[in-house]
Amino acid sequence: MDGLKKVVEDYKELVRNVTGREFPQWPREQLDMAIRAVFDSWNTERARIYRRRERIPHDLGTAVNVCTMVFGNMGEDSGTGVAFTRDPATGHTGHYGDYLVNAQGEDVVAGIRNTMSLDDMASVHPKPFKQLEQNLRLLETHYRDLCDVEFTVERGKLWMLQTRVGKRTAPAAFRIASELVDEQLITMDEALSRVTGEQLVQLMFPQLDPDAERTLLTKGMAASPGAAVGKVVFDSPTAVEWAQRGEKVLLVRRETNPDDLSGMIASEGVLTARGGKTSHAAVVARGMGRTCVCGAEELAIDAKAKTVTVGEHTINEGDMLSIDGATGEVFLGELSVVSSPVMTYLDDGLEAGIKGQDDETVLLVKAVDRLLEHADDVRRLGVRTNADTAEDSKHARELGAEGIGLCRTEHMFLGDRRELIERVILAADDDEKQAALDALLPLQRDDFVEMLEAMDGLPVTVRLLDPPLHEFLPDLNELSVKIAVAEATGEEVSEHDRTLLAAVQRQHESNPMLGLRGVRLGLTVKGLFALQVRALAEAMAIRKAAGGDPRPEVMVPLVGSINELDLIRDEAQQIIAEVGQDKGFDLSMPIGTMIELPRAALTSERIAGSADFFSFGTNDLTQTTWGFSRDDVESSFFTHYMDKGVFTVSPFETLDQTGVGALVKLGVEGGRRGNPKIHLGICGEHGGDPASIHFFHHAGLDYVSCSPFRIPVARLEAGRAAVESEDGTA
Amino acid sequence: MDGLKKVVEDYKELVRNVTGREFPQWPREQLDMAIRAVFDSWNTERARIYRRRERIPHDLGTAVNVCTMVFGNMGEDSGTGVAFTRDPATGHTGHYGDYLVNAQGEDVVAGIRNTMSLDDMASVHPKPFKQLEQNLRLLETHYRDLCDVEFTVERGKLWMLQTRVGKRTAPAAFRIASELVDEQLITMDEALSRVTGEQLVQLMFPQLDPDAERTLLTKGMAASPGAAVGKVVFDSPTAVEWAQRGEKVLLVRRETNPDDLSGMIASEGVLTARGGKTSHAAVVARGMGRTCVCGAEELAIDAKAKTVTVGEHTINEGDMLSIDGATGEVFLGELSVVSSPVMTYLDDGLEAGIKGQDDETVLLVKAVDRLLEHADDVRRLGVRTNADTAEDSKHARELGAEGIGLCRTEHMFLGDRRELIERVILAADDDEKQAALDALLPLQRDDFVEMLEAMDGLPVTVRLLDPPLHEFLPDLNELSVKIAVAEATGEEVSEHDRTLLAAVQRQHESNPMLGLRGVRLGLTVKGLFALQVRALAEAMAIRKAAGGDPRPEVMVPLVGSINELDLIRDEAQQIIAEVGQDKGFDLSMPIGTMIELPRAALTSERIAGSADFFSFGTNDLTQTTWGFSRDDVESSFFTHYMDKGVFTVSPFETLDQTGVGALVKLGVEGGRRGNPKIHLGICGEHGGDPASIHFFHHAGLDYVSCSPFRIPVARLEAGRAAVESEDGTA
Repeated sequence: MDGLKKVVEDYKELVRNVTGREFPQWPREQLDMAIRAVFDSWNTERARIYRRRERIPHDLGTAVNVCTMVFGNMGEDSGTGVAFTRDPATGHTGHYGDYLVNAQGEDVVAGIRNTMSLDDMASVHPKPFKQLEQNLRLLETHYRDLCDVEFTVERGKLWMLQTRVGKRTAPAAFRIASELVDEQLITMDEALSRVTGEQLVQLMFPQLDPDAERTLLTKGMAASPGAAVGKVVFDSPTAVEWAQRGEKVLLVRRETNPDDLSGMIASEGVLTARGGKTSHAAVVARGMGRTCVCGAEELAIDAKAKTVTVGEHTINEGDMLSIDGATGEVFLGELSVVSSPVMTYLDDGLEAGIKGQDDETVLLVKAVDRLLEHADDVRRLGVRTNADTAEDSKHARELGAEGIGLCRTEHMFLGDRRELIERVILAADDDEKQAALDALLPLQRDDFVEMLEAMDGLPVTVRLLDPPLHEFLPDLNELSVKIAVAEATGEEVSEHDRTLLAAVQRQHESNPMLGLRGVRLGLTVKGLFALQVRALAEAMAIRKAAGGDPRPEVMVPLVGSINELDLIRDEAQQIIAEVGQDKGFDLSMPIGTMIELPRAALTSERIAGSADFFSFGTNDLTQTTWGFSRDDVESSFFTHYMDKGVFTVSPFETLDQTGVGALVKLGVEGGRRGNPKIHLGICGEHGGDPASIHFFHHAGLDYVSCSPFRIPVARLEAGRAAVESEDGTA
Repeated sequence: MDGLKKVVEDYKELVRNVTGREFPQWPREQLDMAIRAVFDSWNTERARIYRRRERIPHDLGTAVNVCTMVFGNMGEDSGTGVAFTRDPATGHTGHYGDYLVNAQGEDVVAGIRNTMSLDDMASVHPKPFKQLEQNLRLLETHYRDLCDVEFTVERGKLWMLQTRVGKRTAPAAFRIASELVDEQLITMDEALSRVTGEQLVQLMFPQLDPDAERTLLTKGMAASPGAAVGKVVFDSPTAVEWAQRGEKVLLVRRETNPDDLSGMIASEGVLTARGGKTSHAAVVARGMGRTCVCGAEELAIDAKAKTVTVGEHTINEGDMLSIDGATGEVFLGELSVVSSPVMTYLDDGLEAGIKGQDDETVLLVKAVDRLLEHADDVRRLGVRTNADTAEDSKHARELGAEGIGLCRTEHMFLGDRRELIERVILAADDDEKQAALDALLPLQRDDFVEMLEAMDGLPVTVRLLDPPLHEFLPDLNELSVKIAVAEATGEEVSEHDRTLLAAVQRQHESNPMLGLRGVRLGLTVKGLFALQVRALAEAMAIRKAAGGDPRPEVMVPLVGSINELDLIRDEAQQIIAEVGQDKGFDLSMPIGTMIELPRAALTSERIAGSADFFSFGTNDLTQTTWGFSRDDVESSFFTHYMDKGVFTVSPFETLDQTGVGALVKLGVEGGRRGNPKIHLGICGEHGGDPASIHFFHHAGLDYVSCSPFRIPVARLEAGRAAVESEDGTA
């Protein structure tokens, strides 16, 4: 309490000096308001710490009453209002606010009486209004930003109570930043620091049609953005079943738990009655990109009866609801969903983005364009994409990707090709295995040709096969049950199934994440990586023959020791040289490695001696540094951990700078010491996360790579990071 | 080749200067011998590098012939011999060797003619013998160690050809080191540096009875020490089946693969025809402490016919064989196995160790005792044990343990108590859960009372529950099959089984190593850690009431962030204070954490602020730093990796100093910065590994903790590390 007493004493003295009088005694409710006002405006870290550490008793109000010295409730020539220097919802120029005659501030905020607009205030109280207008202009020029203001008129005289830089919506942020540049109040660099990647994301999601007629049912917390429309279901099995037959469903639960995972995957969106932004539903939905509204406390859910009630409304299983993950609103019925004009602009350019849009939207799209262009001009970080198909590559290129930072080749081994991998695994001898690998070669080569064409002239980093081979086999449990049941009921079990079961049992791992995968697979399964490198070299030759400019790079996953990399590198270089000689082209290409194990980061100086590039795999690096299996922990104890404050954001969303970041820094320093020409990137999902991008910029990486949808965010944030000072402030 | 030519030229000049003549031309076989002799004696790093890098062509012999200037085959007054200054097999004082009249060195080595002893030489060639005796004394005094010598007598004149410090057996190493001290040739510190922990281990294993009659069948590589006697089986299923019915079996395979794991576990020992010391059989057997002889190439195994043939001998399934893992010898039939006198000494003291033993053994046991005592005097590292029972604790204390560094409480949750853990997991509500936990309390308390009593006056570090709870439930796969089969065949499935299956499915994890375990469990399952801390505090109170000196310590597993530790620490301190108040004792005890995740090492400075001690869990730290699941990788690709030279020894056997060691160093430095009073130890299996112990000494830890059997090794090696200089040389 000593600290707080000191603050109060300081404050007393301040007031004494300014006003020349001691603290008056006010009625209780005004004292309470005063305490709140002082502590709201006492906007420093110290005050926040006091507030958290000490419980502030009511009677302290006697000591800190300052702002009740003017009154808006002294008659018809008095009043109170709030004002913004521009519209905080749209960014529209010109002041904007609410005014109440003969009232105190509480009345405006409480919403008990109907307020008038500032324009109306002009006619009621013209003189103070004129002065207010002038003050608003002054404040904006001084703060060079949108300000919000509280003011009181006491017997015709205007008193400015407080001001601060005002909160705004995402569209307003972009428009205001751009227009303040036009008004020569700020520079383009400053404008860039006024918008965020998360605001841009909000503008990219599809939205509920703003013109559609809508009935608001209730409101919860905006937990994961986007719009979701579907038939209400109350349990996961139903969600899965209905989704499988083609229905769009919305999972509605009191709260979710790990058992709901399959239901959440099957649903368009998730709506819960309980839990905040760090609840299980919120964390998991954000992780999988599902729209989510959580903690809508008015929902009275009866899971047995399969109904949810809000006031007079009762919604049954199968009824339609629409949710807005950006606002937390829940609407009755099926609202149409429209794609965002900003997304159209990002995909197809400025012309397409503004075509047929109203003036406000045109201004918004142009502001986004202007700020993104500036970000591209100033950023030092390159932005690549994680993509495994030609289609994704093209889309990412439209969104501004400057190459592929991660092509996961395992995604090319699914579907029909699974059978070929199965043949590789079950092969009785090396000849059979080689035959199966040979059959994969042309398929893999065609994949690469398409991708190199889509990214012609830009780097395409191909990661050699990473997951354990048993991932391509049936699930041990399902297969065991199938065979055991067949045996018990006297059905015939095929020889193939038996062979398969033996193979699955043999290859089963307790912790596949830490097992026979990545470079370990390449060193153990003869011919596997060779096939992939050959396919890539041949694809490069085909593209060269067609007059293209293919720029493939070979990336080795899960390296922990330079010896592993050397063995693969030697083999790869030999194959590339062979194919080159055969086809008559110089096919030399960079060969590098993922840095995704703590040991790789710790021994990066050595490893760099054999690597043309490093790509930090921060997903796996987070898993091993923390000892977290993402598949398990996000849906089990993460909610608990956030509730208890172990961390405030999942380390899989935003890079854990203290722990994992320390390894990234060690990796960068060692890498540059070991090979001054080394190229350094990052291809974990953190590559699309704003805070993490700033960290990567300051850590000295050359590029980030992220999913196509996050490319614009990465461009913007890389630009913002570049205009920040070293310590991360603008 | 240039480097080699230079060496040869240098050598030529040297000989020219010394002998005053040019190199003579000798017959081919003498040239070959000369080359070998020169390069054997050219005992420098440079020569070794030349030998490896360049292939030495035969014709170079013309240039390097030096030592053939004397001949032992010039008649009956000539001869050649080898001599040791002491017996390299037993360490017995007095020279020892072989002599051949009228012969060259090759004849002695080749074993074609029967050699005579040096005593016989004394009577045949008394004059040169006397001079040899004198030289041997001189050499030992000069080198202050056992020397081996090659010499030739040419027409009655003795020529000393070469000498070097001689190889010796484990018993000889201890005796010679101790006796050289008595002879005042070396200090006790030097003596300590002349013996190794691995030699001590060899003396601790049971051995084949040296007096038993034996027929050597063949010899392979000494891959994993000890003696194993059992019935020969040729496949793992048979090994498992026979072992289950109580037979002692010996698994004989051409080579082993991961499928043989169950068979290796079931067998007394493993014998293979193929593969070296890094083969699958060798690595896995060493890992599990099984005796193993591998690469016995004479074995002709016919797995189908279930026979193995060596020359005229045919052994069938079920026949007895005996193997010696320290020598690689394979004997026919059943030899008796005797416990080692050194082990008896370690367990029960010097009196017991020498009682009834012959003179040689008495000298050996006394030498071991003397060197171990000195190691204890000079070592800075404390030596604790990993033990979970009072029995193990007592045994470890006899072997010299100075406390318990790791008590794994999960081992106290097996057997009948499993059912209680099952009740905790299946509890429908908090009350049911608490009831199950309450039932565990007295059992857990009794465990602790016994252990604190066994280690009275010494620290007992109790690790709170670490493994995932589902480890205490039935296996998902087995249970699924059981229920599916019952359903398919119309059998009734109990409600309990269904509940259990649901729980197992719900708690199933893809990578349990990285899942809900350790401190995460403590923070998620309410009351679990509280139960354990309460049991420990109550046990301490009971021991205090009984007049004992209990010194428990609470260790929190799998901490990655100081926040986790703080939450558990606060709760634990409150419980300890409560129990203390209740029982009327001061029960305050150190609370610390494992450092077993990279993040814990990287943020050790912060974590140290809340920890009284750190214990490095290098097993898990190796798993996460390398991304290796030990259960999976040791039996899958490790053999491959050692063959390819990715590493030469498993990082689970000897600490990977470059990678994992870097984190240990970071952890130590950060820990001491964050809390100068912090106590630092290590409780992974590396705590008993010689090379690792030296690393831990130099890294500045306070103690190592290892399994009881490795305590003497740790004492010896900690002493050796202390007398080494900083760079690890003696």
